[in-house]
Amino acid sequence: MDTRTKILTTALSIFNQEGVDNTSIRRIARDVGISHGNLRYHFSSKEAIIMELFNMMSVEMDEQVKIYLSYGSDIKAFIETARYSAKVFLKYRFIMNDVIGISRQFAPLKTALQINYNKRKQQFFMILTYLVQMKLVKPEPFPNYYKKFIDNGMLVNDFWVPISDLYYSVPETDKIEQYFRSWIIYLLPVLTEKGLEEVQQHVSFE
Amino acid sequence: MDTRTKILTTALSIFNQEGVDNTSIRRIARDVGISHGNLRYHFSSKEAIIMELFNMMSVEMDEQVKIYLSYGSDIKAFIETARYSAKVFLKYRFIMNDVIGISRQFAPLKTALQINYNKRKQQFFMILTYLVQMKLVKPEPFPNYYKKFIDNGMLVNDFWVPISDLYYSVPETDKIEQYFRSWIIYLLPVLTEKGLEEVQQHVSFE
Repeated sequence: MDTRTKILTTALSIFNQEGVDNTSIRRIARDVGISHGNLRYHFSSKEAIIMELFNMMSVEMDEQVKIYLSYGSDIKAFIETARYSAKVFLKYRFIMNDVIGISRQFAPLKTALQINYNKRKQQFFMILTYLVQMKLVKPEPFPNYYKKFIDNGMLVNDFWVPISDLYYSVPETDKIEQYFRSWIIYLLPVLTEKGLEEVQQHVSFE
Repeated sequence: MDTRTKILTTALSIFNQEGVDNTSIRRIARDVGISHGNLRYHFSSKEAIIMELFNMMSVEMDEQVKIYLSYGSDIKAFIETARYSAKVFLKYRFIMNDVIGISRQFAPLKTALQINYNKRKQQFFMILTYLVQMKLVKPEPFPNYYKKFIDNGMLVNDFWVPISDLYYSVPETDKIEQYFRSWIIYLLPVLTEKGLEEVQQHVSFE
């Protein structure tokens, strides 16, 4: 592993465990086993490391569209996309753990977060619209309902990880599956009977 | 207004605007117009102020049960309870803005947050169970569905305020109404036809 990758891997692990505010760039250098100066040669500041980790998360997130399309855009595709997205969010959990603090202190990341948020919303809307066309999801009860439904869904998507750490003792190995299920639970009331049947072929709720 | 109340009001306002981490106890004293020593006579630490504000929020939250019961426990009661709860959350928004950071740094508040969370979940479950009995909300599609539905609902409840600050430019005067509506939107897919008709008597979605 080259030094740059080592710095990013180590920083990600410390940020996830201890938060951004409690982590200094010196601490990261110490854990990597390099000098502060050497670390600064690769990243000028803690913010630069955070930004790079955020960019890595965004790239991995964008893969979900490919995964969705590779499964042929049915319920199975939705399920596998949700499972993949759960993995990515868990891997970079420090970002949502402290999204308000980070965006308050660091304007470029705030902008990047906003762009990423809107992109994810559009992807979700695209998937939902398609599921409606396939008669797997019910039509809207009134115009623009699904836009609002997605606004709420983004809260479930973004804050399940922080909240599972704070209020629930979910074993690390179960987190991806439970997080993914919270998504399916969210979608459930808008599924048609056909949609529900298809979901139950892939996920058990017993 | 006595000094103690002045300290709490000022601290709440600064925490909401600038976050807990960026606010020192000296800054609060300065804004109140008292000495650091005088402030410390009332509150031994910043954490003590946060704890007191959290207790105030909890007391105001508990009022929602009274409001619910005073409206006769139908859809109107649910609507007015959601609106009231939106007001309280907005008033103390710094807590959810930085819930992970605060609970990481301050163990007693973490415990208090966990207790408060479970209490609110139970209240929500009680209301939902009643709405099912009244045939305003559909029966569960499978056992324990509504417990999971509420887990997700709590994320909408707790993170709408931070997210509206981060991703949306909602005018302050519209926030209570929009926050409250996000709750109704969340409930909508599980309403029966009768439930939907009753909601539409009180809330317009045009």
